Amino acid sequence: MTVLTTARPLDVVADFPAIPEGWAYLDTAATAQKPRLVIDAITRGYGETYATVHRGVYQRSADMTLAYEAARRAVARFINGAENEVVFVRGATEAINLVAQCWAGMQLKAGDRILLSALEHHSNIVPWQMAAERVGAAIDVVPLTADHRIDLDAMAAMLRPEHKLVALGHVSNVLGSVLDAKRAAALAHEVGAKILIDGCQAVPRLPVDVADLDCDFYVFSGHKLYGPTGIGVLWAKADLLDAMPPYQGGGSMIDRVTFAKTTYAPPPTRFEAGTPHIVGALGLHAAIDYVEAIGLDRIHAHETALVARTREALAGINSVRLFGPEDSAGIVSFAIQGVHPHDIGTILDEAKVAIRAGHHCAQPLMELLGVEATARASFGVYNGPQDVDALVKGIERVTRIFG
Amino acid sequence: MTVLTTARPLDVVADFPAIPEGWAYLDTAATAQKPRLVIDAITRGYGETYATVHRGVYQRSADMTLAYEAARRAVARFINGAENEVVFVRGATEAINLVAQCWAGMQLKAGDRILLSALEHHSNIVPWQMAAERVGAAIDVVPLTADHRIDLDAMAAMLRPEHKLVALGHVSNVLGSVLDAKRAAALAHEVGAKILIDGCQAVPRLPVDVADLDCDFYVFSGHKLYGPTGIGVLWAKADLLDAMPPYQGGGSMIDRVTFAKTTYAPPPTRFEAGTPHIVGALGLHAAIDYVEAIGLDRIHAHETALVARTREALAGINSVRLFGPEDSAGIVSFAIQGVHPHDIGTILDEAKVAIRAGHHCAQPLMELLGVEATARASFGVYNGPQDVDALVKGIERVTRIFG
Repeated sequence: MTVLTTARPLDVVADFPAIPEGWAYLDTAATAQKPRLVIDAITRGYGETYATVHRGVYQRSADMTLAYEAARRAVARFINGAENEVVFVRGATEAINLVAQCWAGMQLKAGDRILLSALEHHSNIVPWQMAAERVGAAIDVVPLTADHRIDLDAMAAMLRPEHKLVALGHVSNVLGSVLDAKRAAALAHEVGAKILIDGCQAVPRLPVDVADLDCDFYVFSGHKLYGPTGIGVLWAKADLLDAMPPYQGGGSMIDRVTFAKTTYAPPPTRFEAGTPHIVGALGLHAAIDYVEAIGLDRIHAHETALVARTREALAGINSVRLFGPEDSAGIVSFAIQGVHPHDIGTILDEAKVAIRAGHHCAQPLMELLGVEATARASFGVYNGPQDVDALVKGIERVTRIFG
Repeated sequence: MTVLTTARPLDVVADFPAIPEGWAYLDTAATAQKPRLVIDAITRGYGETYATVHRGVYQRSADMTLAYEAARRAVARFINGAENEVVFVRGATEAINLVAQCWAGMQLKAGDRILLSALEHHSNIVPWQMAAERVGAAIDVVPLTADHRIDLDAMAAMLRPEHKLVALGHVSNVLGSVLDAKRAAALAHEVGAKILIDGCQAVPRLPVDVADLDCDFYVFSGHKLYGPTGIGVLWAKADLLDAMPPYQGGGSMIDRVTFAKTTYAPPPTRFEAGTPHIVGALGLHAAIDYVEAIGLDRIHAHETALVARTREALAGINSVRLFGPEDSAGIVSFAIQGVHPHDIGTILDEAKVAIRAGHHCAQPLMELLGVEATARASFGVYNGPQDVDALVKGIERVTRIFG
């Protein structure tokens, strides 16, 4: 395996208290484990500095407000957006629903079309179906290339002025396929469509620069970026947010409430009704600090090497079918002839290897691949070659048991 | 102050690491401080047992799913509802918006009416205004009694068959007024209306039994119940949830997704799209365990005694105006003649007393009280008579400075 000799582990597993020695956690695409830095930020947020934000007249609350807004600035810097373009939400799912309701729900009309791809996660399909049904719009689906990437040449041929919105995953959660998001944005803009990029699997794996991509909406979840559960980000160009009506009504998002007429605050506040997930934002800030300290370029190279090692080893086992492109970003889906993916997962679990088996919230992609489910190994900063080797050894055992 | 000799402190402040010696934290109605039990549950959730829920084929994930669903059962038991009637949301604000969109948005038509009260929090006003505007419904407002309770006699006289929904706060976040929610529900049902109770300030202060109240929807936030930020609860009668369309589209809430047609899972899953705030649910479970161990009856008696002590002392200061009923539950709003509430808050902060000053997300109530803002002291399990005394001493100082 000469290709792999350059794959030096990042050697950061000791930062992760929930990963015991000898456990190969290969389900980072579902959710990432948390470094101590993040857990400590959360513990400190609840156990030392806790207070509400935006409202208190006492120092503790003023300090917490500064910390919450510092988290927003950290997110903005992380993806090269502006501070007032960052809305804290529960996760990518809520971010997409917010855009589907407050942007598409207002801007789209009967006869308009939305363009998705065949590999999208349900969270980047269902909200658009719900929005399309409300306004009478239609959905078109970009096919995949032979090696399971979103086919941008096909997309270029499909795009028409009726397309008002394109929504695509930056990195496939099933296949690891990386989208040329910059080209996709340029294609969308050529016909006057806006483009939303689902960055859930991208922000933990690649450097992301929304200004360079020139996309219109970018969304991601905190818990997949080594941060807490219950927090995520909607980034949108300021003029789009400005023109959008509120999503949820409540405290903080108003300018003035009377029973006769209520007026709303400017973004991002307009979209953050109620007490936010304050400590979630602090934890996300710590997670961003953590991955930035390692460097997204290094993380990307590291995970690409682990994928290469995995694909190379699995390609040598006859009964294994590999999905996705050779250069997938940190995620490998596969099947073993005659073995249900759930059985693969269960047997691997006995060998202390945690993978995911199922449809991965991408049933249309499963249909396209001609399977009900796949087995999926996905990597994070804490994984090393020994985890790949444990996976491969486990799969060899599976093939012996079912062989 | 003989009335107060029975007010024994609960003596639990040592459980709260973020409350330093000598700090009178009187902003629990905004957000409660967290007991170590809750912080430990969160730390363990991220630092020992972390995994995703509902999807993993490995043991860690199966265990986390059990823990997440155990939290749902704990919530159900806590308010005497059924497990499948408990939906995890970000907080009460989201819960009300969910009902406003998925229930009111479907059930209400032009000409229907919604009944609110004059003391509601913005989160129990704005979502209904947004829903009413969409469907062409109208909003009526129940007035308050002279001592600032929701006037249920007036409500009885106002209710008509056009009223399809009544939404009322169980305990006012500004005044501490306690609603007779059982009578309110009976009145609503007499005309065929459903009733939603905003229990944000009630669940940390009173025993709540949704079966006994016979309400239709009950909502609350975790962070006001000594739990984490970013988690809250919508409880609704099973038949209502069953008939409601999904709120957000995404992973977990579906039965089957195809580009042609998507079908949805049954409640509560239907309303929990995307990866939930897993560790938030674990923390909320711990918070419920914590308050149940003390006992809601004891907490209620404790806070009522602290309020009595506060009102008694402040009634003796000429320039102080007290709002709300004598028997308010843990919350006292007041004004000092000639002093802006923010200045009260700032001066009290110097004396290590943290209160809130402002409109408390209840601008219509401020208008009714004839003020722009009030100062508000609100109690929690960690407060004792010494906190009341520090507050009173601070207010005496304010009156001297401005006197």
